[in-house]
Amino acid sequence: MSAFAGKDSAAAAKAVVLLSGGLDSAVTLAYAAGKGYACHALTLDYGQRHRVEIQCAQKTAAVQKAAEHKIIRVDLGAIGGSALTADIPVPDARPQSGGTGGIPVTYVPARNTVFLSLALAWAEVLRAKAIFIGANSVDYSGYPDCRPEYLQAFAHLAALATQAGVVGDWKVEIQAPLVQCTKAEIITLGKKMGVDFSLTSSCYRPRTDGRPCGTCESCGWRRKGFAEAGEQDPALGPRM
Amino acid sequence: MSAFAGKDSAAAAKAVVLLSGGLDSAVTLAYAAGKGYACHALTLDYGQRHRVEIQCAQKTAAVQKAAEHKIIRVDLGAIGGSALTADIPVPDARPQSGGTGGIPVTYVPARNTVFLSLALAWAEVLRAKAIFIGANSVDYSGYPDCRPEYLQAFAHLAALATQAGVVGDWKVEIQAPLVQCTKAEIITLGKKMGVDFSLTSSCYRPRTDGRPCGTCESCGWRRKGFAEAGEQDPALGPRM
Repeated sequence: MSAFAGKDSAAAAKAVVLLSGGLDSAVTLAYAAGKGYACHALTLDYGQRHRVEIQCAQKTAAVQKAAEHKIIRVDLGAIGGSALTADIPVPDARPQSGGTGGIPVTYVPARNTVFLSLALAWAEVLRAKAIFIGANSVDYSGYPDCRPEYLQAFAHLAALATQAGVVGDWKVEIQAPLVQCTKAEIITLGKKMGVDFSLTSSCYRPRTDGRPCGTCESCGWRRKGFAEAGEQDPALGPRM
Repeated sequence: MSAFAGKDSAAAAKAVVLLSGGLDSAVTLAYAAGKGYACHALTLDYGQRHRVEIQCAQKTAAVQKAAEHKIIRVDLGAIGGSALTADIPVPDARPQSGGTGGIPVTYVPARNTVFLSLALAWAEVLRAKAIFIGANSVDYSGYPDCRPEYLQAFAHLAALATQAGVVGDWKVEIQAPLVQCTKAEIITLGKKMGVDFSLTSSCYRPRTDGRPCGTCESCGWRRKGFAEAGEQDPALGPRM
């Protein structure tokens, strides 16, 4: 856990922002801050192969002046079942299908439910008004827990799961501002808000120096997004 | 993580059973086994003060011959907000109100959502047919995430959160067989199934030797339950 001397948040409503170290969540953090929230960034150290993401999250939280940044360990590696946490190779990109081609081995079982649950726990302690998640269901890998209907079900659960459902003096919204955006639209939005994409990592199997492999599915979506947005990806050069 | 040479589970449907080390989850494990499931017990080491619970869970999983027992660490202490995880004193029991007297400081924000999420992740890897949780909404402390409407919302979420919602070749039920039972009924059921209550701990602030304080709210519910069931509580003598 690290804390930053962020914006004066005495009067600002609080938000918990899930920050993975990837591009989408960096844009989501900037979006939430732009809406005036005091942003409490939450990164889950879940045993992912791509540890460079956690360093990216730390740098992004600092540069974007999050009110606070917590890194919480939850050992999804003990559960396995994914190329991102278990001893299963990360494949090259499939023909890009917008999520209609079945669920890839990079899917981590129930990951967003675990992440949102922990964000909900912290939101309840903070009395945060919103939880932001960078889930996207357009240019994505077809993970079930990125879809709007899933996020709506979590919002319903959140209302019943907490003091909100009993005492009624507090309520939290689940906000996924990028859920219907293309990757190019996300990049354009991030550029406009000054997001430093050189501090983000999208690759499922980065090299030891933190540079992306360039051929996994996530690298594919990122490359397509930068190309369509007419932007240069700063993460492709030497970095960190 | 430890594995036991459990029942022959080649043909049995699998279940993930949340096992806290308390009385209710020990009865739930016996119930699930009695229904013929190969039981994969899951204990969360979440930074609780009452660490003796984890030892109880290990002994109960072994004695009841669970197919497998995983202990996964998730640091809810980093989130705080509860007398069970943060530096807030555990109070003596309030007048027992069946959950109508507000939410006590022993409530751990979003705990059951975090626990069920991790159970869901494991259930998806195992292709388990059910997740069992010992939640109870009768003789309990009024926690919002023990109520039937909460559990129904989680079941709805689970269907959308996982491959079940996309591929449709697998489905998991959320089972809370004790949700409408009194503590006395739970104890009577457990006795009938041979549950060894000396291996369970219910106390929110046990002594250093593992014995219960006798005066916290959870000890109060337990004492009332044993009295109403006409049974002796074996955990009150020297144990472990």
